[in-house]
Amino acid sequence: MPPDSPNGMRTLSPAGAIAPTGTWSVGARAGDFIFVAGMRGIDPATNTLVAGDEPRVRQAFKNMAQIAATEGATLRDAVRLVVYVTDMARLRPLVNQIQSDLWDGGPYPPRTIVEVARLNQDDIVEVEGTFFAPRKPEGK
Amino acid sequence: MPPDSPNGMRTLSPAGAIAPTGTWSVGARAGDFIFVAGMRGIDPATNTLVAGDEPRVRQAFKNMAQIAATEGATLRDAVRLVVYVTDMARLRPLVNQIQSDLWDGGPYPPRTIVEVARLNQDDIVEVEGTFFAPRKPEGK
Amino acid sequence: MPPDSPNGMRTLSPAGAIAPTGTWSVGARAGDFIFVAGMRGIDPATNTLVAGDEPRVRQAFKNMAQIAATEGATLRDAVRLVVYVTDMARLRPLVNQIQSDLWDGGPYPPRTIVEVARLNQDDIVEVEGTFFAPRKPEGK
Repeated sequence: MPPDSPNGMRTLSPAGAIAPTGTWSVGARAGDFIFVAGMRGIDPATNTLVAGDEPRVRQAFKNMAQIAATEGATLRDAVRLVVYVTDMARLRPLVNQIQSDLWDGGPYPPRTIVEVARLNQDDIVEVEGTFFAPRKPEGK
Repeated sequence: MPPDSPNGMRTLSPAGAIAPTGTWSVGARAGDFIFVAGMRGIDPATNTLVAGDEPRVRQAFKNMAQIAATEGATLRDAVRLVVYVTDMARLRPLVNQIQSDLWDGGPYPPRTIVEVARLNQDDIVEVEGTFFAPRKPEGK
Repeated sequence: MPPDSPNGMRTLSPAGAIAPTGTWSVGARAGDFIFVAGMRGIDPATNTLVAGDEPRVRQAFKNMAQIAATEGATLRDAVRLVVYVTDMARLRPLVNQIQSDLWDGGPYPPRTIVEVARLNQDDIVEVEGTFFAPRKPEGK
């Protein structure tokens, strides 16, 4: 895919990812880093929110992981996570449990978790991640 | 401009940018990336908030773009945006409309938008952006 | 320390840092950047919150600085700060005062400060920082 600017930044729109509903892309590559937009628990197959707290939080992380994977990054390559929740007491334990599953007991990336006043669609969780995936040398 | 540390980080204080009112700079360059501080809809000419939702949101994006431009990055080089609003229902549509204008229909960078409890000066929107602008080789 | 993934990302768990209480690490190195998890005013010696607004805010910044230092970055190498507070009017002035002390009058890194609805443990401030510390050439 060609870059979106002479500087070499490239937006991502991988097959199978959720469809953006506003003026944003699901991710971008710049140099050796992958930046993924805040992901929520939307099922890419239907583009609707998954029902239930646990499945929805899990889907948010899965959406993030799927986008990062298209650029050669796994969850182990996450270098920074910000998790926005709308109820710290109810949702932080779920986030911990799901991360424990998905990262298979760790090590885990640095994370910041905050309770915000509201998310789009009155959703309950949104996770934003940055990943490290050095570009391969040309011709390899 | 010389760096602010032996590691090569350099803070930005470009002509025409808003004047920081606290312990922060408007931006920094480190390696190939430009980090711009959260920008609000302040008119750099008067250092006061622009009146009206639409003009104020637009000014926030313009302030960010102006700072990035001084380091060779356009809005197309934004790799990550976080938009903080104080009313998701009222302000997200405005942000979408203004981004559509400023990015000329896209592609758009990855974005995370959340409603927070309060911004400085009881403002309505703040946008934080990271940009990609590889350093030019020496002597070019 | 070996990396945590073939891509070269490495999580940090330096001696003397606070002990994570969930599925996160205190920091990570990836390429020339250091990403520190959101830090709060927890005393690493006791792993409990420091009493008092001013000491607690100061401790949060000190915790961040201590982790960055283990990878060769000082506060002058911070390229991006996000400060989450739960009371903008009361805490922003304290953050400004403490940053003025710790950065010795500046220059300061780009900063974004927002008031959120809640932090973990009903805490009052959390600061997340990214630092620039280029890797040393091999053998040096």
